Amino acid sequence: MRILLVNPNSTASMTAKIADAARAVAAPGTEIVAATVTTAPASIESRSDESRALSGLLDTVLSHADTIDATVVACFDDPGISALRELTYGPVVAICEAACQVASVLSARYSVVTTVPRAVNVISENLLQYGLDRKCLSVRSAQIPVLALETAEASAAERIRAEIRCAMEEDGAEAIVLGCAGMANLAIDLSHEFQIPVIDGVVVAVKQAESLVTCGLTTSKSGTFAPLQNAPLPA
Amino acid sequence: MRILLVNPNSTASMTAKIADAARAVAAPGTEIVAATVTTAPASIESRSDESRALSGLLDTVLSHADTIDATVVACFDDPGISALRELTYGPVVAICEAACQVASVLSARYSVVTTVPRAVNVISENLLQYGLDRKCLSVRSAQIPVLALETAEASAAERIRAEIRCAMEEDGAEAIVLGCAGMANLAIDLSHEFQIPVIDGVVVAVKQAESLVTCGLTTSKSGTFAPLQNAPLPA
Amino acid sequence: MRILLVNPNSTASMTAKIADAARAVAAPGTEIVAATVTTAPASIESRSDESRALSGLLDTVLSHADTIDATVVACFDDPGISALRELTYGPVVAICEAACQVASVLSARYSVVTTVPRAVNVISENLLQYGLDRKCLSVRSAQIPVLALETAEASAAERIRAEIRCAMEEDGAEAIVLGCAGMANLAIDLSHEFQIPVIDGVVVAVKQAESLVTCGLTTSKSGTFAPLQNAPLPA
Amino acid sequence: MRILLVNPNSTASMTAKIADAARAVAAPGTEIVAATVTTAPASIESRSDESRALSGLLDTVLSHADTIDATVVACFDDPGISALRELTYGPVVAICEAACQVASVLSARYSVVTTVPRAVNVISENLLQYGLDRKCLSVRSAQIPVLALETAEASAAERIRAEIRCAMEEDGAEAIVLGCAGMANLAIDLSHEFQIPVIDGVVVAVKQAESLVTCGLTTSKSGTFAPLQNAPLPA
Amino acid sequence: MRILLVNPNSTASMTAKIADAARAVAAPGTEIVAATVTTAPASIESRSDESRALSGLLDTVLSHADTIDATVVACFDDPGISALRELTYGPVVAICEAACQVASVLSARYSVVTTVPRAVNVISENLLQYGLDRKCLSVRSAQIPVLALETAEASAAERIRAEIRCAMEEDGAEAIVLGCAGMANLAIDLSHEFQIPVIDGVVVAVKQAESLVTCGLTTSKSGTFAPLQNAPLPA
Amino acid sequence: MRILLVNPNSTASMTAKIADAARAVAAPGTEIVAATVTTAPASIESRSDESRALSGLLDTVLSHADTIDATVVACFDDPGISALRELTYGPVVAICEAACQVASVLSARYSVVTTVPRAVNVISENLLQYGLDRKCLSVRSAQIPVLALETAEASAAERIRAEIRCAMEEDGAEAIVLGCAGMANLAIDLSHEFQIPVIDGVVVAVKQAESLVTCGLTTSKSGTFAPLQNAPLPA
Repeated sequence: MRILLVNPNSTASMTAKIADAARAVAAPGTEIVAATVTTAPASIESRSDESRALSGLLDTVLSHADTIDATVVACFDDPGISALRELTYGPVVAICEAACQVASVLSARYSVVTTVPRAVNVISENLLQYGLDRKCLSVRSAQIPVLALETAEASAAERIRAEIRCAMEEDGAEAIVLGCAGMANLAIDLSHEFQIPVIDGVVVAVKQAESLVTCGLTTSKSGTFAPLQNAPLPA
Repeated sequence: MRILLVNPNSTASMTAKIADAARAVAAPGTEIVAATVTTAPASIESRSDESRALSGLLDTVLSHADTIDATVVACFDDPGISALRELTYGPVVAICEAACQVASVLSARYSVVTTVPRAVNVISENLLQYGLDRKCLSVRSAQIPVLALETAEASAAERIRAEIRCAMEEDGAEAIVLGCAGMANLAIDLSHEFQIPVIDGVVVAVKQAESLVTCGLTTSKSGTFAPLQNAPLPA
Repeated sequence: MRILLVNPNSTASMTAKIADAARAVAAPGTEIVAATVTTAPASIESRSDESRALSGLLDTVLSHADTIDATVVACFDDPGISALRELTYGPVVAICEAACQVASVLSARYSVVTTVPRAVNVISENLLQYGLDRKCLSVRSAQIPVLALETAEASAAERIRAEIRCAMEEDGAEAIVLGCAGMANLAIDLSHEFQIPVIDGVVVAVKQAESLVTCGLTTSKSGTFAPLQNAPLPA
Repeated sequence: MRILLVNPNSTASMTAKIADAARAVAAPGTEIVAATVTTAPASIESRSDESRALSGLLDTVLSHADTIDATVVACFDDPGISALRELTYGPVVAICEAACQVASVLSARYSVVTTVPRAVNVISENLLQYGLDRKCLSVRSAQIPVLALETAEASAAERIRAEIRCAMEEDGAEAIVLGCAGMANLAIDLSHEFQIPVIDGVVVAVKQAESLVTCGLTTSKSGTFAPLQNAPLPA
Repeated sequence: MRILLVNPNSTASMTAKIADAARAVAAPGTEIVAATVTTAPASIESRSDESRALSGLLDTVLSHADTIDATVVACFDDPGISALRELTYGPVVAICEAACQVASVLSARYSVVTTVPRAVNVISENLLQYGLDRKCLSVRSAQIPVLALETAEASAAERIRAEIRCAMEEDGAEAIVLGCAGMANLAIDLSHEFQIPVIDGVVVAVKQAESLVTCGLTTSKSGTFAPLQNAPLPA
Repeated sequence: MRILLVNPNSTASMTAKIADAARAVAAPGTEIVAATVTTAPASIESRSDESRALSGLLDTVLSHADTIDATVVACFDDPGISALRELTYGPVVAICEAACQVASVLSARYSVVTTVPRAVNVISENLLQYGLDRKCLSVRSAQIPVLALETAEASAAERIRAEIRCAMEEDGAEAIVLGCAGMANLAIDLSHEFQIPVIDGVVVAVKQAESLVTCGLTTSKSGTFAPLQNAPLPA
């Protein structure tokens, strides 16, 4: 099985980090095909960045579509998910959705810790759409730019730790979802440190994609995600 | 006052029709600056089309940003609204949001009648986000491609009529929102025919934009729509 | 065009202040017809006050109904709105609803700052009904009686400022809605002071009424707001 | 114990019918004090009727306040409930709220059958406010004026039966709430006929009032329903 | 009339305390039949305890079913309610549901104060199901084991007082619901001390059961709570 | 890795069928440990059946707890899930929750088709709790007893087909979730027949459990699912 793991921003070091995390959990027969959207902004920290990344994201996925079984979009804003579900047949898995589904299974109440303040609203809107807001106590920003996770990881991790502590003590969080693909390498250490589940969306999304392929499940092609150009003509 | 009325698709005849509708209601001192996103698909009938249109939509608005007071995005999927609120200072008005706000004022319960079946989910997701789903009885598709409103208007209008009838008789709709900018020219006749408010989002959005400018109100630049590149650096 | 701006309480100085605010934004051809409900309590600070004001409010509006195009009810509790929609044909605009719709367009999250503590529940119930609770972070009381806005404006304004500050710093509000018609004259100064949109419901409601009339839109007379005495007789 | 049972409309025959129903279930020591709001419309079939009835309703209750232990408002629109909770110390019980609470206890899903179509929206808004909309499948109008329950009872009852049948067969209702105080005398027969609970709000509200008095419970006088004239003065 | 008051845990002293509270409010003709589930855990402080108690709870109620008119389940987690509604014909009343319904009538906003932290989630899930979460500000744990209410009542009551104070001052609670049947004897004193309604679920549930029997109302046997073994066989 | 797959009813043929389905998708290194709750009812078709099954379900899982890595509860009512999360350390996966999470990923709107009518309410309550009700169009009963899936499979499958057809044509379902563990062997054929995803909860739950173990994720032991006997003692 081949799973396309696409990083919607153009920072190749992040793609490499994400791919490492994915390969660490992938089953023996699963090939992780990592791709960077080279035409996208270096990081996605706003709705504008997301808008600028989308067309390239679609092209990147389409260029692999014939040879992959499922797609994982490795940006916590879950950009382009519905468009990709229209365009491809295999499952399209979103890391925020997958991670918050897992948090709902492992705890009664959880919080998300993300990077920039602006992402709080994007994530909150997505959770409302998914229905996963019901068990989410808070979406907290660690006030760090996304690329600090590449270039200034120690200080960035310190800020993330501070927000996890607040989420646990002030909000009552029983599990934490890390709200950025670039945090993928931090989850295991933070889990040990805080003694609660700290969930990275990349690995759980890759496993969800793998599971769906194993079960023979693909995106519904009836209705919302039907193949394009199928609208009936007026008589 | 200058209001940018941007058509996110590349069909110039639709831009012209929309601009006519807007100018018919604009106040004497209001100049409607109509713009077409020439790099976009001919119509926006899917999340993929929307994804392809966004970057050009941002460029188009930015190219006018210094000389306009407010922006109206004339596509019922309300594409790029949050990104444009990040990028510009004047109000950014969305035609679905504006029309459904008006429907909530004029009736206790309303329905939306749109073009392609795929739009139903996009609109439903937007209404949930806006909170305007509470009084919305149904989002109905007239099963027509967007461009049929340009090229086969008579048969398209017939299908729209049929859905309005169903919305009134089966769902109990007390007002109708027309779910496509390309229907702008149909609203008045349909209002007379069905004797209930039939609301075109273009004209109410233009008036909303004009009202906000008159009241001196602009997009909040604190928090979610703050100017870009303001994320704090880690120590 | 003639817009009836009705103050549901009997304090004429408040009516004058509201009418000034309305006239400052009205279009050249718009006449603001200001009316005071002389039989009502001096201020509306409770559900009981509202109950005492309603019959006079209906009479006041009915006495102008033949000569006006739209009605704006200038009390933030939005009293009598549904009854007036039953009784008149032109649009009936509510200042809380209009202001919170605008706040939803200009920000991702906003707060309301009102006068008496008792109003918090009234406003919260209305926002739930409108669906506008989704983006509303908090409804805060400045702990001032309504008439302090007429007689002790400086100290009242100071308390309002304190609550705006809390809404921004503690709740994360990106815009503020002023929760009393009597605050109409404060909005512009507070906007400048706090550098975020501070929205007065009176002016945005007047512009909404004007816009609806310009677009030829009136209250739906099918269903909930149908003319009275139309219930079918049993066989 | 003395329970005030107030009919907010001015039709004395309805008051008598309601009082009979109440006395049939009251405990031996409970005196039912029935009152008619003589200044109100003959029936409450609209928000306008409700607005016209409120001031007299408050006066009627206040005139008994010193000598009664609790108040039941016997109109299914639950008019004036919050105002009365401000004005009196004993519990104020609303028949729609009480009946739908009972329906939630006796069934997993229920429907309301009311009189005029216009009441559907009033009841739906109340249920949303109470949270009791979650288990309510439908609010159905029997398309009868309220006073038909006094003057043309046989044909009115036939229409009510038809709607109960639809609620059961089409909506899956497991219990029915009768949505008008004037239907109080029909509940028992309809229960037998349809073999599901058919709930009249008057009797369950009277028993709720009686229960609260027995338990020594009164309306909270802290916050929303605090005694009036308690707003703090600005410094 | 005979009302079965069943304590789902096996602590007889708690049953006695609950029965005393019930008898203090029961009408002259009402016999309170108190029962202890002797096979259950000594207290129900977790979902596991609840799971262990259920089978015995059903047996206990069934052993009385022929001779009682209604059942009250005296544990604030409302265990087994739906199962008992399937198994018996008389009304089955739940103390959390009954108490929170009453709190909704007596106040605009209330809080629940319960025993162990783990109960917070159980109660929150139940309130969501009932729709009674809308007016509930907070569910607070006094951090006491259930049996401390039997063996260390003074210190337990002190902790409960502290949480009531927080609920009032920090959350704005206007009424308090005591979230454990074992607190039944504390309600009246706490009401006097805090001068707001402090509601014990046992007494209001007993009165609700009594009221339903008096009104001739029983559990719906159509649909969800139909008698068992009625599923149709496939052809 | 060892995954406990527990069938909460006592029908061994169903356990065997479920285990076959699970083993067909399990990874090479995963051992499926299938267990039947021998003390439970033969099928779980009501809340009473569920109540009777719980204690044995807990015992069965506890007897394997030391030797397994995760637990899957193979009954679509998701019985005992919270209790098992309290009692064990490894992930506890529920088949309804897992299947509806997958349906949310593969479609914009889905329906559930279950066995007995009584299960509709159980499933609806669970979906509300999970937040997964937002995209669920309908929960439909095929009007078959659970054991008909063992003994009269052909006619049972015919009824399931009829409901899938209705869900697609009347409700607009884009994917189907099979609402009973006993339908595990039907999913693939029904997917082919209806050309949309038909999801069996058993296989997706097993893959979810496997994924969580691979990612090193376990149930949060902070807060709601903390180990038992940890409530603090009063001073």
